[in-house]
Amino acid sequence: MRNIKMIIQYDGKRYQGWQSQKHTDQTIQCKLETLLSKVLDEPIEIAGSGRTDSGVHALGQVANFRTNSKLALEEIQQAFWEYLPQDINVLSLEEVDDRFHSRLSAREKIYRYSIYNAPVIDVFDRNYAWNVKEPLDLDAMRKAANLLCGTHDFMSFCSNKHMKKSTVRSIYSIDFNITNISHGRKIDISYCGNGFLYNMVRIMTGTLVEVGLGKIKPEEIPMIIEAKNRQNAGMTAPPMGLFLCEVIYD
Amino acid sequence: MRNIKMIIQYDGKRYQGWQSQKHTDQTIQCKLETLLSKVLDEPIEIAGSGRTDSGVHALGQVANFRTNSKLALEEIQQAFWEYLPQDINVLSLEEVDDRFHSRLSAREKIYRYSIYNAPVIDVFDRNYAWNVKEPLDLDAMRKAANLLCGTHDFMSFCSNKHMKKSTVRSIYSIDFNITNISHGRKIDISYCGNGFLYNMVRIMTGTLVEVGLGKIKPEEIPMIIEAKNRQNAGMTAPPMGLFLCEVIYD
Repeated sequence: MRNIKMIIQYDGKRYQGWQSQKHTDQTIQCKLETLLSKVLDEPIEIAGSGRTDSGVHALGQVANFRTNSKLALEEIQQAFWEYLPQDINVLSLEEVDDRFHSRLSAREKIYRYSIYNAPVIDVFDRNYAWNVKEPLDLDAMRKAANLLCGTHDFMSFCSNKHMKKSTVRSIYSIDFNITNISHGRKIDISYCGNGFLYNMVRIMTGTLVEVGLGKIKPEEIPMIIEAKNRQNAGMTAPPMGLFLCEVIYD
Repeated sequence: MRNIKMIIQYDGKRYQGWQSQKHTDQTIQCKLETLLSKVLDEPIEIAGSGRTDSGVHALGQVANFRTNSKLALEEIQQAFWEYLPQDINVLSLEEVDDRFHSRLSAREKIYRYSIYNAPVIDVFDRNYAWNVKEPLDLDAMRKAANLLCGTHDFMSFCSNKHMKKSTVRSIYSIDFNITNISHGRKIDISYCGNGFLYNMVRIMTGTLVEVGLGKIKPEEIPMIIEAKNRQNAGMTAPPMGLFLCEVIYD
């Protein structure tokens, strides 16, 4: 059987997230599986590197699937180009080793969260950033971000209360990229880690924004982590500012 | 009376163009006039630097209006931030000399047209570029663009058959900016001139694309100009790839 790896870009706005669900076919996984099953003439199941929530975007989601079909990759790519909706695009297709699994083989993931810190959001960014109107204290946010980095139990930053598996993750870096704009600035926060829990990036971002607004002190971050309780962390940032940028493999 | 200059950004997708019209209030000018008339408590008419067609975007449209109101510019700006829809944004407000007129005082205008020359359009550019799937011959397009530059009667590049005023315009430069993307390239064409006729940038772009596809030879451009007949030029490029970038004053 062939094992095929795909890199996928999507605008999450119209979708109920990545993962297939029983009550809706408006998921990215479902759109891809339906098309692949038709084109390859056999039922295809794809495995994603991880879920993205409803409304979250991807610049480089990775997934793989197995097939008995001998159809050339170029023809599969052609079918994606012809039949996928304009808000989903498969950037590349590649035949990989049988042991490759998009989730289990992933070593690192990079997410970006975009904040528009100005009285109004940019017209062309309005679906791709969170508009925080009050000025944010970037120094405080950077301090707090440094305290989030490292290997911790991130239970306080997980929306799933019934998580049975380990909630320990390693965050390697949280980087800030600032762009000055009229009447404010755009703040892009990049998170690099070995894995992320349900809503984890959005809760970390909401917490950093509350630090930037002076509602949480940077020094409180270690206590928030230690509490292992979602209620101690800040709000969950809205989905439209979040992008899954890259999944890195060995 | 105060004379106030505004710089305006908008996503043209939902609108019937810039200019106020009798049968619809879905125009940028109408949205701004309605809001200003309420805020300043007197009927306000604004003059734009020029019309943009239905579906065309602006990064820096300029308009001005006269008012007896003494309301501070900051308060007018605040009203824009609060009440304009997210796809229209006033970037700046400035009190200017009484003689200033956004259209009559304009010295140069810069438009940009974005083409996605690849089998599919980028997910995040899908509303802001024209997807031309067949590969374009850039050298031929550049040659043709050079022949369009200069002072000419651009009647062949004007959709208004009953144009009574002069159709002579000067194009100072047509610049190409190329970005390599997966499976193709993005081509941004910037047009700088002293003024543009109805649909002129879109017809020039459509003609350049037909040159890039080999349907028109670059050497034919002078004859197309000389014909002074719309039918001799190429197609009208679709509106969503066009941006009014900047209006330059002395």
